[in-house]
Amino acid sequence: MPEAPSPRTRVRRHPERGVYDRAAVYAILDEALYCHVAFARRGHPFVLPTLHARVGDRLYLHGAPASAMLGTLAGGAEACVAATLVDGLVLARSAYHHSLNYRSAVVFGHARDVAERAEKLAALEALTDHVLPGRWRDLRPPTEAEVRSTRVLRLDLEEVSAKVRAGPPGDVPEDPDLEVWAGVVPVRQAFGLPEPAPDMAPRPLPPYLARLLEGRRA
Amino acid sequence: MPEAPSPRTRVRRHPERGVYDRAAVYAILDEALYCHVAFARRGHPFVLPTLHARVGDRLYLHGAPASAMLGTLAGGAEACVAATLVDGLVLARSAYHHSLNYRSAVVFGHARDVAERAEKLAALEALTDHVLPGRWRDLRPPTEAEVRSTRVLRLDLEEVSAKVRAGPPGDVPEDPDLEVWAGVVPVRQAFGLPEPAPDMAPRPLPPYLARLLEGRRA
Repeated sequence: MPEAPSPRTRVRRHPERGVYDRAAVYAILDEALYCHVAFARRGHPFVLPTLHARVGDRLYLHGAPASAMLGTLAGGAEACVAATLVDGLVLARSAYHHSLNYRSAVVFGHARDVAERAEKLAALEALTDHVLPGRWRDLRPPTEAEVRSTRVLRLDLEEVSAKVRAGPPGDVPEDPDLEVWAGVVPVRQAFGLPEPAPDMAPRPLPPYLARLLEGRRA
Repeated sequence: MPEAPSPRTRVRRHPERGVYDRAAVYAILDEALYCHVAFARRGHPFVLPTLHARVGDRLYLHGAPASAMLGTLAGGAEACVAATLVDGLVLARSAYHHSLNYRSAVVFGHARDVAERAEKLAALEALTDHVLPGRWRDLRPPTEAEVRSTRVLRLDLEEVSAKVRAGPPGDVPEDPDLEVWAGVVPVRQAFGLPEPAPDMAPRPLPPYLARLLEGRRA
């Protein structure tokens, strides 16, 4: 079993839920549609949701050049990134044993600006296809102005871990006789019927969108 | 229109997306199944997903007495809490104008231990019913040992704001002629068929679970 890459990535509460296998952590990062990025600025904590994409051992973030979050991170502030998937409501007999089934990845590191043009374009492609695989090649190439107007940051994936809970509720032995429904309600992200842009002439759905409606984003 | 309660809660990127109406921010906190809590410890940022529940102008968090996050927050560390709902994938003609439709609430504040028994029990009820309204009254009351073994923190909701994007993609005028599907794919949280606990005798679903399967958590 892989070990935690650092003391702060080691899961202390419910250590049996700790996951340090890099491929398993990466799978959570890839499946999560978006992440939350935390950092400290002038001693105060901030956390914001944002898109991400992983390419190999690198995590990419992007936004407007004026983004305060990107500016703070590129300026040297440490980042803590969380990607969270909720898989189920765990309904035990007692309130105390209620829980969620989840897969939660956490990454620590420092992000830096991506200046090199080829890496920046590859990151933009990865960010687009992270949301909807196959989308990028359907689009016109970005203009120079668009590339310049997008700031891309890279965070090398070194200090990563995950925490996972799965399975039925963990009731105490004296509770299962209680007459209350107990079990797990699966939770998932679902996609609804696409709403065409008002200014688009009728067009068939591209195949990657049809796949999404069958519940497969990746 | 209400104003931002502080400079750091004022939305700077896309200021038109800023929401400072307290009821609107509270609705996001209530709908989000869980939140992300960020704080700094010894200068390093941390962010973790956790359950929350709102009662009036108070946000409650809970966990094990040994939780490092709760200990750090109760010890005086400032908290930044994010509750995020993703409503849609915004597929524009250009990669540059791709986006997500979302409702994102952010709260700053200091959390403190809830010592008073009645408030602690009310918070545990709110945390249980936040996940599944109606669940609490179906359960046996918590034992004294369970109450003692749960730490509950309260964060007064003073510095709150939200950022909301809704609607179709915002393409540039020269792009709509491109032959690419554009529009919005709705995203929502869906609940699957409940999986009864292996040690439970067959029981009908309680009404609040049947309601959940129709897509209504609250």
